[in-house]
Amino acid sequence: MGVVIPLEENKNKQASVKPLVDLTKSGMQRVNQLILSKAGSDVEMIPEVANHLISSGGKRLRPMLTLAAAELCGYVGENHIRLAAAVEFMHTATLLHDDVVDESAMRRGKSTARMIWGNQASVLVGDFLLGQAFKMMVEAGSMDALDVLATAATVIAEGEVMQLSAAKNMETTEDDYLAVIRAKTAALFAAAAEVGPIVAGESKAVRNALKSYGMNLGLAFQLVDDVLDYGGTTAELGKNTGDDFREGKITLPVILAYRRGSAEERAFWKRAIEEGQSSDENLAIALGLIKKYGSLADTITRARHYGTIARDALAPLPDTPLKDALLEVIDFCIERVS
Amino acid sequence: MGVVIPLEENKNKQASVKPLVDLTKSGMQRVNQLILSKAGSDVEMIPEVANHLISSGGKRLRPMLTLAAAELCGYVGENHIRLAAAVEFMHTATLLHDDVVDESAMRRGKSTARMIWGNQASVLVGDFLLGQAFKMMVEAGSMDALDVLATAATVIAEGEVMQLSAAKNMETTEDDYLAVIRAKTAALFAAAAEVGPIVAGESKAVRNALKSYGMNLGLAFQLVDDVLDYGGTTAELGKNTGDDFREGKITLPVILAYRRGSAEERAFWKRAIEEGQSSDENLAIALGLIKKYGSLADTITRARHYGTIARDALAPLPDTPLKDALLEVIDFCIERVS
Repeated sequence: MGVVIPLEENKNKQASVKPLVDLTKSGMQRVNQLILSKAGSDVEMIPEVANHLISSGGKRLRPMLTLAAAELCGYVGENHIRLAAAVEFMHTATLLHDDVVDESAMRRGKSTARMIWGNQASVLVGDFLLGQAFKMMVEAGSMDALDVLATAATVIAEGEVMQLSAAKNMETTEDDYLAVIRAKTAALFAAAAEVGPIVAGESKAVRNALKSYGMNLGLAFQLVDDVLDYGGTTAELGKNTGDDFREGKITLPVILAYRRGSAEERAFWKRAIEEGQSSDENLAIALGLIKKYGSLADTITRARHYGTIARDALAPLPDTPLKDALLEVIDFCIERVS
Repeated sequence: MGVVIPLEENKNKQASVKPLVDLTKSGMQRVNQLILSKAGSDVEMIPEVANHLISSGGKRLRPMLTLAAAELCGYVGENHIRLAAAVEFMHTATLLHDDVVDESAMRRGKSTARMIWGNQASVLVGDFLLGQAFKMMVEAGSMDALDVLATAATVIAEGEVMQLSAAKNMETTEDDYLAVIRAKTAALFAAAAEVGPIVAGESKAVRNALKSYGMNLGLAFQLVDDVLDYGGTTAELGKNTGDDFREGKITLPVILAYRRGSAEERAFWKRAIEEGQSSDENLAIALGLIKKYGSLADTITRARHYGTIARDALAPLPDTPLKDALLEVIDFCIERVS
């Protein structure tokens, strides 16, 4: 089960991303300008499709990690801006391709690009943004940063294919699932944080500290996301919940409920996930089973475990407001579920 | 109409790609090994999908250009091998995504990956190969080569979106069409050739010579491809022809026939291309119109025009067997139509 350390004991204040937002504000303004300019093209459809997603109110957590990690290491210059924008483009390209792969209709409360401009434009504009991301990395001029981000691009794609191969297979283990989210989500968090110290010319030890912070933050983030898809700890479905169930996606709440369930309950999960019997009635049954076996609470416990690793990864670094802000983001990512 | 210089006058020998194949043979063996090893992954589906296309008997013209261009400039080392493999992966990734975008069922006489493993796997394995391509560029260690290839990746995607925007629009001009093929096809030929002198540390003048050679060879190559899709100069359809017509793709043979046609004939083209009335009967009518207006012969004339530019681009370089082989490839690309 892993050792569980409650991060929020003796703390009344709600953790927030605001300190990180405030401390990276001036850098993020430059990142946002760069993002808008590099999403431009004489081919009209490209900025249309790109800006639909870019302006849809994502938190831009990943580029903020890059800026914070670089500035934490005392970096002054422009290259972390370029790398942060590149990281966000990699993320945006992934989302465009993901929505095609998952046949998703909605993202962040808006129609997906593929519903408006079609799968074709989503695939190609994703490719365009990936190309632009690599051009910005070249402009940043660090071969090490390029290596880290190119590797992340490969690993993300591997994670997505792994997820595809595991899709609708109820025998997926927690370890299989962890390998998927480590690759498809956490690898980009890790790379985003690692390129900060790289551009600042920091030691391998500091690089590894921030990489480990990013990796484990990413795991916690994705685990909590998967809990939120089942309505959070209240396990009550809102309008943006239940998507994973309807898409037959196997996440940890489902894996735990399945493995802890009776033979009869396991047969239900197989019908629901493997055979696609994902009616609202079945979603209600699924939610009942998830509650019965405490799968959401235990998934959050797992998230806290990774959150603690992320916190410890930063321990050797000097205490500064930026470090505090990065630590608070761990709690924020976990607390947003409650 | 452009100046037309018949390249093949006073020449009986059929131009061939064989001298280039022979001169790059030992390098291409290393490229092919690297391709196989970098298409590997613990995620089983990735090498399956990748090797389906990789082993499907493409000519590997683009990586041969990289090797030839580097060796022409006296390069000895391993980095041109890495860049050549990266170029081929970029090409393979593009084909995987293209087949999804075009909803193609067949490529090189085999079922496309999307017909066997689905659109999802094709999109994601394409992304994986693109990531691997950038990793190999990083290993090659040249920021200039990375810049050229990252730019090409962006331009290719722009060209594909341009083509999508122009799709099924019979008012597409020859200039529009040229802009599309310059971006989606010729840009990668140009980049493949340009990274050779870059890795060899050559002057800007030599870089530009090989880039121009690649660009214009790419244009000629695509023009001839578009002629071949209508059965070549005989304008008789074989089993692999007529695909562009059925997909409503607007290529130069169609543009010329449309613009030179009567009002009635233009109405036919609009029904066939814009409204998708692409029955075999209509394909036969289309072919009749293409013959009537000499569209195939004139498209080949255009290809010769670009072939001549490619030839002149290499003129300042010293005469060597490799240069001769590169020049013969121009003729080969054009002659394969007759």
